[in-house]
Amino acid sequence: MDFLTSDQNTLRALEKQLRLTYENFKRKQLKLNMARGKPCPEQLDLSSGLLESLQGDYRAEDGTDCRNYGGIEGLPEARRLFAELLEVRPDEIIVHGNSSLTLMHDLIARALLLGVEEGEPPWSRQPVKFLCPSPGYDRHFAICEFYNIQMLPVPLREDGPDMDLVERLVATDETIKGIWCVPKYSNPTGITYGDTVVERLAGMKTKARDFRIFWDNAYAWHDLTSQPDRLKNILTACEEAGYPDRVYIFSSTSKITYAGAGLAMVASSVKNINRLKKQMAIQTIGPNKLNQLAHVRFFKNAQNLLVHMQKHAAIIRPKFELVQKILQTELGAKKIATWSRPKGGYFISFNTLPGCAKEVVRLAAEAGVELTKAGATFPYGHDPQDQNIRIAPTYPPLDELKTAMELFTVCVQLVSIEKILRERSHPPAGYRDRKEAQIV
Amino acid sequence: MDFLTSDQNTLRALEKQLRLTYENFKRKQLKLNMARGKPCPEQLDLSSGLLESLQGDYRAEDGTDCRNYGGIEGLPEARRLFAELLEVRPDEIIVHGNSSLTLMHDLIARALLLGVEEGEPPWSRQPVKFLCPSPGYDRHFAICEFYNIQMLPVPLREDGPDMDLVERLVATDETIKGIWCVPKYSNPTGITYGDTVVERLAGMKTKARDFRIFWDNAYAWHDLTSQPDRLKNILTACEEAGYPDRVYIFSSTSKITYAGAGLAMVASSVKNINRLKKQMAIQTIGPNKLNQLAHVRFFKNAQNLLVHMQKHAAIIRPKFELVQKILQTELGAKKIATWSRPKGGYFISFNTLPGCAKEVVRLAAEAGVELTKAGATFPYGHDPQDQNIRIAPTYPPLDELKTAMELFTVCVQLVSIEKILRERSHPPAGYRDRKEAQIV
Repeated sequence: MDFLTSDQNTLRALEKQLRLTYENFKRKQLKLNMARGKPCPEQLDLSSGLLESLQGDYRAEDGTDCRNYGGIEGLPEARRLFAELLEVRPDEIIVHGNSSLTLMHDLIARALLLGVEEGEPPWSRQPVKFLCPSPGYDRHFAICEFYNIQMLPVPLREDGPDMDLVERLVATDETIKGIWCVPKYSNPTGITYGDTVVERLAGMKTKARDFRIFWDNAYAWHDLTSQPDRLKNILTACEEAGYPDRVYIFSSTSKITYAGAGLAMVASSVKNINRLKKQMAIQTIGPNKLNQLAHVRFFKNAQNLLVHMQKHAAIIRPKFELVQKILQTELGAKKIATWSRPKGGYFISFNTLPGCAKEVVRLAAEAGVELTKAGATFPYGHDPQDQNIRIAPTYPPLDELKTAMELFTVCVQLVSIEKILRERSHPPAGYRDRKEAQIV
Repeated sequence: MDFLTSDQNTLRALEKQLRLTYENFKRKQLKLNMARGKPCPEQLDLSSGLLESLQGDYRAEDGTDCRNYGGIEGLPEARRLFAELLEVRPDEIIVHGNSSLTLMHDLIARALLLGVEEGEPPWSRQPVKFLCPSPGYDRHFAICEFYNIQMLPVPLREDGPDMDLVERLVATDETIKGIWCVPKYSNPTGITYGDTVVERLAGMKTKARDFRIFWDNAYAWHDLTSQPDRLKNILTACEEAGYPDRVYIFSSTSKITYAGAGLAMVASSVKNINRLKKQMAIQTIGPNKLNQLAHVRFFKNAQNLLVHMQKHAAIIRPKFELVQKILQTELGAKKIATWSRPKGGYFISFNTLPGCAKEVVRLAAEAGVELTKAGATFPYGHDPQDQNIRIAPTYPPLDELKTAMELFTVCVQLVSIEKILRERSHPPAGYRDRKEAQIV
């Protein structure tokens, strides 16, 4: 049943019925939280034994006593392991503690105070802008907002940011100093950047000499299917394009081992890494090497880590499938929503009819299901179409997820009907179909 | 034998003999490092079982699964434990991961970018100065130098910084935004601030409305004797003086459990702590709570931690005693050096005759004993009298420490004799006795 072409009486009758269902949900006094992309306890159980893997032997392979000070760049064996996984060289990576968000934040803070390379001024000397492919990761946007970095949203397409727009913007505005990217299984839309996009990002002419790509490869190994997306190596691409220092790559084990108690890493050119090591030496005497050693002992090699990720997938794949099934069953034919079918990562990106997202999230919250704040996936929390909702299915158990999603689809239908009926009686001026809607 | 009054022939004969001894040391091809205040392996062994203390139970007392995201301010039980130890309330403390240096660095970086309180401008809008009681901790000074904060050295006396000078400076110069303090068993001189100094710091009039005391209480529980120094509570003192937000107190377990894999904490007024929590939430989703839980499970309560510190003292006290004994035996009557006799902390502060420290450190290094760089205990690495050397006796085993200190005393004598003889033949213009020497 297509809501958009249904007559008023049909919609009103359905609305009445949905309202009853909604009130029934409310009576259950649910308290479900789907706001953040959190691993569930079963996923965390996969790392049981990690902390115990040291067994009183605290020596790294080079003899370092990991209980004592030092080693700003991380243990050699940890650098080697994650270098292999991120397809960089061990001298192109720093392995640190929790978390990649901290590494990104600190890089931005230092860039503002000191600049990102010798001879270039601190970014904070003038207004700074960042390109923000959207929908995107709210915590990236929060860093910019916190430090008064102006965010320019750029539409995120199926193969990455709108590169025509990106190239045009960076070519002329030297205050645009960077771009945020979640290049694989992007947060929230789940897309992976295509090779051409990676190449264009690596090779584009930027007016700012000290332009940087913040490449948050948070879901590098977080595949849900046996045909995982492949992401082109951007560090190599930047080198080949003649901009070897353009990119900082970030990743972490927060969704591999323990969220908040894992390792984080940053990879870049040796020049950038050496500069960063010197800067980090002012901030810390070294990372938690015991945790690094425990991680390396636990995984032993990259292959085992990938096998570990398959176990994660086995736990969360049914949750993604359940969400897809419920969305398809409840909303599939109604033409009031679209959503992503990601092959990895932590989210399903859901688009309502324009102008409905906030109300859907509010209704769901009123019935005890907390979703990510509507708008959170856009700079300044402002979704210009008010239609994007990030669904985070990994944490709740299947039965709770089922309840939450059923309620969610009821909310989506209710809000959509109200909107359709309202607009039929008072068509909005300059109404545009959401398919034509431009983010920028 | 007083070198200063010995005749030239006596000194020349002694020099020859010392030179032979020195060459003998050199032949041993020593490779001893006494540059940093590092715990020794036996100290680290005291925390055996810490990482294993979780035993598969990852729940904090409030039910938090410590393997998952969240909890920016630290676990309630960790806040309570360290609040008790630091004599503050649990809501006046944030417990984080490794390290206190990071907490200090990040506070400075954020102060430069955003200021330290609502309505006050970012520090970086104008030149910033910090008062640096000296000799002091080189890593404090490194943060200032890194961020181009001008350091003003202030003499550190037996009861803390020269408060007459401090009060005079802060009263008139509004670009002086802070002061570094290691108030108990100070690094390197080992002194503890007297009550009057604490009160004067808490209550002094500062031209800068947003002046801050960085109170690095790194050695709060690191007593070496059964009559430990008592430090007055500065947070309470600031409150009573009407400047409740003036101080940030830092500490860590780096020299209690694992150096680089411990917990760090910052305590301040609730207003400052709440502001800091909001700021840190931009940088991280939360600290490593597993490590916090492990620490709390390992110690259980403050009393046990203090007992644990007595075990540390039992290991390192003999090292401090050995250093004192060798210094006294070899240099006691020679009038060429003075040194501290700390009741806690990690260092012995040693003063040569003026103009000798660099050469002593160089000579020792040439014979295989690496000491803290001469000058490191002063802002910009510049000891105006070139006489202070920081001795870090905790790490080497007793036999190595003995060798190192014997070599050290030989170097001190050699350099002193050379200086004395040189000055007898060419008295320096404007020579002043080191006792009259002023740091500022």
